[in-house]
Amino acid sequence: MVYFYIMGLRCILEGGFIARESEKFEQFSEWFDRVLFTARIADNRYPVKGFIVYLENGWFVIERVRRRLEELLEEDGHFPMYFPIVATVENFSREAEHIKGFMGEVFAVGKLRLEGEEAPQEAPLILRPTSETIMYPMFALWISNHSDLPLKTHQSCAVYRYETKATRALYRVREIPWNEAHTAHASMEEAEEQVRKAVEIYSKVLDELGIAYLILRRPDFDKFAGADYSIAFDAWNPDGKVNQVATVHNLGTNFSRVFGIEFERREGGKAYVWQLCYGFGYSRVLAAVIAQHGDDLGPIFPPWVAPIQVVIVPIPYKGREVEVHRYAGEVYSLLKGRYRARLDDRPDATPGEKYYFWERRGVPLRVEVGPREVEKRTVVLARRDTGEKFTVPLEGLEGEVNRVFGEITRTLAERSKNRLSEQLVDVGSLEEGARSVELGKICRVSWCGSDECALSLKGSMGAEVRGYRYGVEERGERPCIVCGRPGKTYLYVSRAY
Amino acid sequence: MVYFYIMGLRCILEGGFIARESEKFEQFSEWFDRVLFTARIADNRYPVKGFIVYLENGWFVIERVRRRLEELLEEDGHFPMYFPIVATVENFSREAEHIKGFMGEVFAVGKLRLEGEEAPQEAPLILRPTSETIMYPMFALWISNHSDLPLKTHQSCAVYRYETKATRALYRVREIPWNEAHTAHASMEEAEEQVRKAVEIYSKVLDELGIAYLILRRPDFDKFAGADYSIAFDAWNPDGKVNQVATVHNLGTNFSRVFGIEFERREGGKAYVWQLCYGFGYSRVLAAVIAQHGDDLGPIFPPWVAPIQVVIVPIPYKGREVEVHRYAGEVYSLLKGRYRARLDDRPDATPGEKYYFWERRGVPLRVEVGPREVEKRTVVLARRDTGEKFTVPLEGLEGEVNRVFGEITRTLAERSKNRLSEQLVDVGSLEEGARSVELGKICRVSWCGSDECALSLKGSMGAEVRGYRYGVEERGERPCIVCGRPGKTYLYVSRAY
Repeated sequence: MVYFYIMGLRCILEGGFIARESEKFEQFSEWFDRVLFTARIADNRYPVKGFIVYLENGWFVIERVRRRLEELLEEDGHFPMYFPIVATVENFSREAEHIKGFMGEVFAVGKLRLEGEEAPQEAPLILRPTSETIMYPMFALWISNHSDLPLKTHQSCAVYRYETKATRALYRVREIPWNEAHTAHASMEEAEEQVRKAVEIYSKVLDELGIAYLILRRPDFDKFAGADYSIAFDAWNPDGKVNQVATVHNLGTNFSRVFGIEFERREGGKAYVWQLCYGFGYSRVLAAVIAQHGDDLGPIFPPWVAPIQVVIVPIPYKGREVEVHRYAGEVYSLLKGRYRARLDDRPDATPGEKYYFWERRGVPLRVEVGPREVEKRTVVLARRDTGEKFTVPLEGLEGEVNRVFGEITRTLAERSKNRLSEQLVDVGSLEEGARSVELGKICRVSWCGSDECALSLKGSMGAEVRGYRYGVEERGERPCIVCGRPGKTYLYVSRAY
Repeated sequence: MVYFYIMGLRCILEGGFIARESEKFEQFSEWFDRVLFTARIADNRYPVKGFIVYLENGWFVIERVRRRLEELLEEDGHFPMYFPIVATVENFSREAEHIKGFMGEVFAVGKLRLEGEEAPQEAPLILRPTSETIMYPMFALWISNHSDLPLKTHQSCAVYRYETKATRALYRVREIPWNEAHTAHASMEEAEEQVRKAVEIYSKVLDELGIAYLILRRPDFDKFAGADYSIAFDAWNPDGKVNQVATVHNLGTNFSRVFGIEFERREGGKAYVWQLCYGFGYSRVLAAVIAQHGDDLGPIFPPWVAPIQVVIVPIPYKGREVEVHRYAGEVYSLLKGRYRARLDDRPDATPGEKYYFWERRGVPLRVEVGPREVEKRTVVLARRDTGEKFTVPLEGLEGEVNRVFGEITRTLAERSKNRLSEQLVDVGSLEEGARSVELGKICRVSWCGSDECALSLKGSMGAEVRGYRYGVEERGERPCIVCGRPGKTYLYVSRAY
C-alpha cells in the first residue's frame, strides 16, 4: 500500500487504483456524520440527546451481524432468552461494586403521574444498563444441582445508560443495541474455558467483518463493576480514539454470592457458581465497519452484510437502448435469486450519477453493461474497494461474483489490519507517548506491572490505559516507561470512545 | 372429529386416536401456566408485575415468527428501521385523541436521582406505548415530495404499557414484544390498498401457524386512539376470551396534520400524507399457538417454528443395545443437517419417560427405533398431533419427514378452524347471548348499524363488542338484536383478553 498526496489530500494507491481517504482521517467527525446520513445508516436529529434513529441500511447490517453472532452462540450451547427491561432498585443494589459503577448513569422508570394522581405504590424500577441484576435472581431459581450447569444464555436487546458527556451517533449513545451472554459454571476452570470460547466467538464475527482490533485485558482499575477481570476488544478508529466493540468479563463468584446461586456439587457439598458475562455492541461494530472500511465517498460494506450486494447499471448508447436494457434485465435475473441485487434502470439519471449514488451507499460491487457487453455476452465488474474494473463472461457470472466477494472481503480485512499496524507505535518515553497520542496513535509502552505506574499514565500521556494483550504473551524487554524498573509486559495507551 | 368423555374429561377422537383436552378447556389458566413452565416457554416469577422471562422455547418460536413476518414485510417494500424507545412528552401529547387513549397507561422515564442530586434539567420522557409520536416527527423531516412516497417501515421491538388490571403471561403484560409497521401514502386510495396488503401479510403468517381467527372491523368507539378506523385479528381461545393478536389502523391524515407531514403533489400543490400503522403481537401470537394447538400434555408446535422438530428415541432391547444405538445415531446423522433434530440417548431414562418428556415440550414428531427397525432398516414415526404411529423405510426418510410435517401443519390448522366454528354461535336474543358468553362462546348478533345499539350490548351481554367482519360481507337478514329495526350486518360479541 502506498500513500501520496494530491493537493494536500491523503490518497492511497493500491493495485494501481486510487481511493481518496483524507477526509476520513483528517476530519473524521464531519466525514462520519455525513456518511451516516447519505448512506442512510442513521439519522441523528431525534429530539432526545443520545437517542438516534437507525435507518434501513444501518439496521440491515446490525440484523445480519446479529444473526451470525446468535448462530455462533447457539452452536456453542447458549439458549436464546429474553429478560425484562426493568430491574427493581433492590436487586440492582445487591452487588456493591456493581451499583457503585452504574448508579450514576441509570434511568429510573415508573408510572407517569397524571395531575391529581397519587404517588404510585409500586417499588421504583430502573431500565437495564446491563442485565446481571435482572437475570441472576432467576438463575438462583433455576440452578440447584450440578446437572443444571453449565447454564448459558444470550439475548439481543438494548441497554440504557444516562450518558452525561457529549454523545456521538453509534459510538456513545444512551440506547445501546447489543447482545449480552451470561453463563454459570460448576468450576473456575470451566469458567476460564468459557472465557476463551467467548473470545473466539467474538473474534470470528469481527474477523468475518474484516474489523481489525486488539484484545486487551483491562487494568484492574478499569474492569467491569463486579468482575474479577475484564477483557475487551478495541477496534482502531481513523481519529485515533479506539472503539471498544465487545467485552468479556469473568465475574468469579461475586454475583452468585449475593444472589445466592448455589448448587449441589457432583462430589457432594454446596458451592457458588462461577459466572461470566460478555457483551457485543451492535452499534459500535457497525461504526467500526463504516469507519475502518469506508473512504471519502462513503462506506464500503463487506458483501455478506451489505444491504445491496451488487448493483447493475446499464449504459445505453443511442439507438441501442432496448438491447442494453434487455441484457441488463437478463443479468439481473441471473443474480437476484442468489444475491441482494438491484437493477438501476432509472431513465432520468446518467450512468455516472448512478455510479456515484451507489458508491456513496457502500454497495461493494457494480456490474456495468453496454452495447459491447451485449455483443460479447460479457459484463464489466467494478469493485468498490479498489476501483478496479474487469470484464468477465456472462456464463458463470454467479460463481465469479462469489469469488470477487471473497476477494473484497479479504482486501478490506487486510487493509484494515495494515492500518492498525500503522496506528500502533512503540514509545520509549512519556513525552514521546503524549506526542504520539496527539497524532492519533495507539502507544505500546513497557510496564513494570504495578497499578500505580499504569494509573499515572493517563495523566502524563493524556490518554486511556487500555490494558495488556490477551492471548499473546508480550514479555517486557525494556524498563518501565514510568518508574524505570524492569518491564514485565506492555501496556496499550490511547484515546478512546 | 368426535368428542366423548372418559371419567368426566373431554377427549377427542380423531383418525382413531385419542388426545385428552379437558384440562385445556375446563381449567385454562392452570393448564396454561403449567405448560409455559414445563415446556420452557416462559417463567412468570419475575419480581415485577407484568414483566416475564421468555425461556428458550418461547423465545425461539417468537424469533422464527419474527423472521417470517419481517421477510414478508420487506418483500412488500417495508424498510427495517429502529426508532428510539423514548418519546418527549411534548411530541406524545400532540395528537389529542392519541394522548387521551394512552396517557393513563404510560411509563415515565428519567435519570435516577441520587441523594442530594438536583432535579434533572432535561424534559420528561415516556417509554413508547406505541411509536407514532416517535416516528412521525422524523417522517416530517424525510417527506417533502411525492417521490418520497410511499414510505413504508417496520421495527420489531417491545412497547410498554402500565397495565393496572390483573396481568397474565403472554396475554396481558406490561412489556409487549411486537412488530409495528408504519406507512405514509400520497392518496387515500393507496392507503386503503395498503390496508388490504397489511391484512394479507398478517393473515399469511397466522395461517402458516395454523391459528384460526376472525378479522373484524372494530366499532368506532373502540378504534385505536387517533385512527379513522381499526381492523383487528381475534384468535379464539379455549376459555372463550378472544385473543387480539394483530391490528391494522387507518390513520387518515389525523397524525400528518399535527406532525406537519406534507408533500408536494405530482399534480402540484401541497397535501398531508395518508398514514397507516399496524402491529403484530409476538407474545399473543405465541399464546395462540400454544392455546389453540396444545392438548392436556402440553404444546404442539407447528414444525416450522418448533425449537426441536424431531426427536429420535432408541428402544434398546437387552443384548441388542449396541446395534440399536448405532442405528439411532445413523438416523440422527441423516436428519440433523436438514431438521432441528435431537437424539435422546440418555441412559438413565426409559423410552416411555422420553416420550412423555418430549411430548410435554411440543416436539411435533418422534422417531422410534428398536431391534425390529434395525433389522428391516425402517423407523417408526409417531405424530404428536394425532398420536398416530407408522413404519417407514430409512431410505428416503428426509422426504417422508417433510411430508409428515406438511400433514401435521395442515391437521393443526384444520382442527383449529373447526374449533373456532364450534365456538361461534348465532344468537337471537340478549338473554341467549348472555348465556352463550357465559359458556365461552363468540356470539354473532344481528345489528342495525347504530353506535347506541352496539354500545348497549356490552352491558346486556356481559362481553366486548369485537366488531363486524372485514373482507367478508355479511348482510343482515334478521332484526337488530337490540332495537328490532332491520339488521344491516352482524356484530361479533365475546369476552376478550
